[in-house]
Amino acid sequence: MDLYEKLNAQGDKVRALKAAKAEKADIDVAVQLLLKLKVDYKQMTGQDYKAGCPPSENSVPPDNGPAVDGADDEDTVDPWNVSTTSAKGVDYDKLIVRFGSSKIDKELVDRIEKVSGQKPHRFLRRGIFFSHRDMHQVLDAYEKQKSFYLYTGRGPSSEAMHVGHLIPFIFTKWLQDVFDIPLVIQMTDDEKYLWKDLTLEECHRFAVENAKDIIACGFDINKTFIFSDLDYMGASPEFYRNVVKIQKHVTFNQVKGIFGFTDSDCIGKISFPAIQAAPSFSNSFPQIFGGRKDTQCLIPCAIDQDPYFRMTRDVAPRIGYPKPALLHSTFFPALQGAQTKMSASDANSSIFLTDTPKQIKNKINKHAFSGGKDTVEEHRKYGGNPDVDVSFMYLTFFLEDDEQLEKIRQDYTSGALLTGELKKILIETLQPMIAQHQERRKQVTDEIVKQFMTPRPLNFNI
Amino acid sequence: MDLYEKLNAQGDKVRALKAAKAEKADIDVAVQLLLKLKVDYKQMTGQDYKAGCPPSENSVPPDNGPAVDGADDEDTVDPWNVSTTSAKGVDYDKLIVRFGSSKIDKELVDRIEKVSGQKPHRFLRRGIFFSHRDMHQVLDAYEKQKSFYLYTGRGPSSEAMHVGHLIPFIFTKWLQDVFDIPLVIQMTDDEKYLWKDLTLEECHRFAVENAKDIIACGFDINKTFIFSDLDYMGASPEFYRNVVKIQKHVTFNQVKGIFGFTDSDCIGKISFPAIQAAPSFSNSFPQIFGGRKDTQCLIPCAIDQDPYFRMTRDVAPRIGYPKPALLHSTFFPALQGAQTKMSASDANSSIFLTDTPKQIKNKINKHAFSGGKDTVEEHRKYGGNPDVDVSFMYLTFFLEDDEQLEKIRQDYTSGALLTGELKKILIETLQPMIAQHQERRKQVTDEIVKQFMTPRPLNFNI
Repeated sequence: MDLYEKLNAQGDKVRALKAAKAEKADIDVAVQLLLKLKVDYKQMTGQDYKAGCPPSENSVPPDNGPAVDGADDEDTVDPWNVSTTSAKGVDYDKLIVRFGSSKIDKELVDRIEKVSGQKPHRFLRRGIFFSHRDMHQVLDAYEKQKSFYLYTGRGPSSEAMHVGHLIPFIFTKWLQDVFDIPLVIQMTDDEKYLWKDLTLEECHRFAVENAKDIIACGFDINKTFIFSDLDYMGASPEFYRNVVKIQKHVTFNQVKGIFGFTDSDCIGKISFPAIQAAPSFSNSFPQIFGGRKDTQCLIPCAIDQDPYFRMTRDVAPRIGYPKPALLHSTFFPALQGAQTKMSASDANSSIFLTDTPKQIKNKINKHAFSGGKDTVEEHRKYGGNPDVDVSFMYLTFFLEDDEQLEKIRQDYTSGALLTGELKKILIETLQPMIAQHQERRKQVTDEIVKQFMTPRPLNFNI
Repeated sequence: MDLYEKLNAQGDKVRALKAAKAEKADIDVAVQLLLKLKVDYKQMTGQDYKAGCPPSENSVPPDNGPAVDGADDEDTVDPWNVSTTSAKGVDYDKLIVRFGSSKIDKELVDRIEKVSGQKPHRFLRRGIFFSHRDMHQVLDAYEKQKSFYLYTGRGPSSEAMHVGHLIPFIFTKWLQDVFDIPLVIQMTDDEKYLWKDLTLEECHRFAVENAKDIIACGFDINKTFIFSDLDYMGASPEFYRNVVKIQKHVTFNQVKGIFGFTDSDCIGKISFPAIQAAPSFSNSFPQIFGGRKDTQCLIPCAIDQDPYFRMTRDVAPRIGYPKPALLHSTFFPALQGAQTKMSASDANSSIFLTDTPKQIKNKINKHAFSGGKDTVEEHRKYGGNPDVDVSFMYLTFFLEDDEQLEKIRQDYTSGALLTGELKKILIETLQPMIAQHQERRKQVTDEIVKQFMTPRPLNFNI
C-alpha cells in the first residue's frame, strides 16, 4: 500500500510536469522513477499497477515489467522465450527501462578500464554487454581492496553448444583474468530435467559434456568451480540451506508475476528459481569462501536470465545477504535474423562448436540473413544495411580489431563490400576460432573435468 | 475426462440401486467405489467432482477428500490441523471412507500375528493403528521371502516431545523387532523452518535433540538410519534426484487440492511434499539398499500425515517405483479432551517426556478431562463414561494388560471405580514409563546420535 501511494503521487507529478510543459529532462527523470516504482510494485505484488486500483490478492498474467508508456509489447524476453518483430533485434534501451536496470555507458566502460588496468573487452566496447546492476558499487569496493566473485551458468539441454552459448563464458573468462577472482559456474541440469522431456541421466551427462566446452574457454582451474545442481545439491548442506532460505521468502504469487508460472506447472518448476538464486550468496560455497556470507557476487549473463536475479536481489536483504551485481549481454542472433536468438534445437539456426570448417562455410553462405541488396548492381549503388545483417552482427561479436570492423561497416554500407565478401570475412573469422576451440576441448580430459567439478578450495585472496 | 465419465456412470449406478431398493451390501459396495473415484478425481484435478461439471483448469478451495454423502464437515484432519466437535474424538470410520484407506480389521491383525509369529502389539489389538493401505500386499510378499523397510518421521518444531509423539515410534520399534527389517526416520527440520518462525539452526538443533528421544525408544542401531533433511539433502545426490523426480510429477493444482496451499504460500512449502515423499523410495538410500529401487516401503504414521502419502502413491507408478504401504494411527488426545490432539505448544495439554513424577501427577489430576459424574454419590449410582475420559484413553495407549484394562473399563462404567482412582492408575503407569524413558535418553550420548545419523550400510537381509 505504501508503494501504491508512492506510485499515485509520482503519477500525479508526471502529469503535472507534462501539463506545465516542463523541461524534457525533468519529465524524463520523473518518468524513469515512475517506471522504476512500477517494476518494484509488480515484483512485490505480482500485479500491474493501475491508478485507482489498490493491490489485491488476486493473481495476474505474467509480465516482465510494465510496458513503457503502455506502447510496445513487441519484444518477449524471459528465461524461456526471446523474440521481437524487429530485424534489428530486441530494443535493448526499452528493455533497460522495463527491467529497471542501468545502461553500461561510456563512463562505466572507462571506469572498468581504469580499475582493471586493462583495455575493455570488445563486448564492453561494442555494447554487447549493455546493461548492469550495481557495477559501480562492485568497483567502489574493489578499489578499497574488497574483492568479489563471479557466478555464471548454463542450462545443459543438449550435448551440442553453439557459438552464442560462448558469449557469457568468453566475457567471464576476461573478467576472471583482469580482476583475478574466483568463479562458480552452475550447470542447471535439474532445471532442464524439469522443463524438458529428458531423463535425469541425460541432463547430467549434458552438464558434464557442456562443462568440457566451458573449460575449453580457458578458465583457470585454480580459480574456477563448475557444478551440476544434481551433484552439488547432494554434496553441500550449505547450498541446500540457502535454497530453503530463499524458498521461504518467495511466494507463488511472486514467481507467478516474475516467471509466468501457472497452477498447472509442476512444483519443481515453481521452486526452481531458488536454486538458480542460491549461488549468488558466497556461503553456498564454504569450501571456497569459508563461512563468509558477505563476499560480493557479480553475475555476467544474457539479459533473459535477469528475472531470476531480480527475484534474488529482492530476497537478499531479507535473509541478510548482499545483493548480487549483474552485467547483462544482448542475445546472439539466429542465422536467420535477429528476431530470435540462436537455438540449439534448430541445427540450421546455429553455428555449433562441433561444426567442421565446411559446415560453417555452408551454413553462413546459405542461411545467414543478409542486409545486402538483391543484385550486385543495386548493392554497389545503394549499399547494404549492416544493422540487420547477421554476418556483420556476428563479426561485432568475434572480430577483435575495432578499426577493421568499422571499415567493414563503412564498406558494406557504401556498397564497396558485397554480401559474399562480408560472409567470407565471417567464415574466415569463425573457422579458425572454432577449430581452436575444438583443439582445446580435445585436451580437456575426464580427469580435468572432474577436478573442475570437485568442491574444493580455490586460489585467491579476498 | 475419463475419470469424470467413470464417475458419472458410477453415480448413475448408485442412484439406480437406491431407486430399485437393492440390498444394502450392494449399495454400499457401489457407494464405496463412487467415493474412491471421487478421491482419485480430486487428487488428479485438484477439484471436487460435480455431476454435470467436467474438470476445468480453475482452482478450488482445499479439502481432504469429499465429505461422505455431503453430510459432515465437523472433523478437520490435515498435516497441520486436527479437530472435531465430538468428545469421543475424530470419527475414524468416516475418515477411512474420506481418505479412501482400508480398516485394520480382525482378519488383518490375525494375519500380522501369523506372519510375524508374535502377539500383535496393543496398538493393533485396540484399534489405535486402525487404518492401512496395501498391508496385505506387504504380508503376501513377506511370506514369499520378499522383505520390506520401514519409514517414519518427525517434524522437530521444539526441543520438547510429549508422550503422544512416541506412539508411531513405539509401534515402529515393535515392527522392526518382529519383522527384523531396516528403518529410516526422517526429521523434517526444513519443513519446520518453512512453516514456523524459527531459524535453520534452531530447527536443526531440535532435530538432533528429538533424535535422542527417538533413539531412547530402543531402536536397533544396526538397522536404523535417522536423518535431518537439512543434512541429508546435502549429503545424498540420490535423495535429491528422487525429490526432483517427484517435483516434476506433481503440479501446484495437485498440492493445492491435497494440502490447501494458496498463491500466498512460499515456494518452499509448495515444493516440500516431495521431500517427505522421497524416503518412500528405497533408492533414496543407496548406502542401505545399494541401487535397488524396488524394495517395498511401509510407513507407520498418524493419519494426519496420509495426504503426503496419497500424493506419493499417486506419483510412484509414474516414476517407476512401488507405492509405499501405510499403517495409520489415531491421534493422541490432549489432556483437555479428544476434540484435539496433544500439542507441544501448550504445556498443560501434554505430558512431556521431560516431566517429573510430580508434574505428571499434577497435570493428570488437574487437567485430564474426566468422564465421571460430578459427585461421588452420582458416580457410584450412574457410573462414568470411559469413551470421553482422557485418563482411560491414555491407559488404552499405555497399559499392556488387556484384562486389567477391560476390568477398569467395566468398573468405571459401573461406578465401582472413581475418577480419582482411575487417574491414580494412569499416574502410576506413566510415572515409571517416563522415568525409564528419561533414564534411557540419558544414556544416548552424542556419539550414539552421530552414529544413528550417519549415512551408512545397515545390517539386514532383503
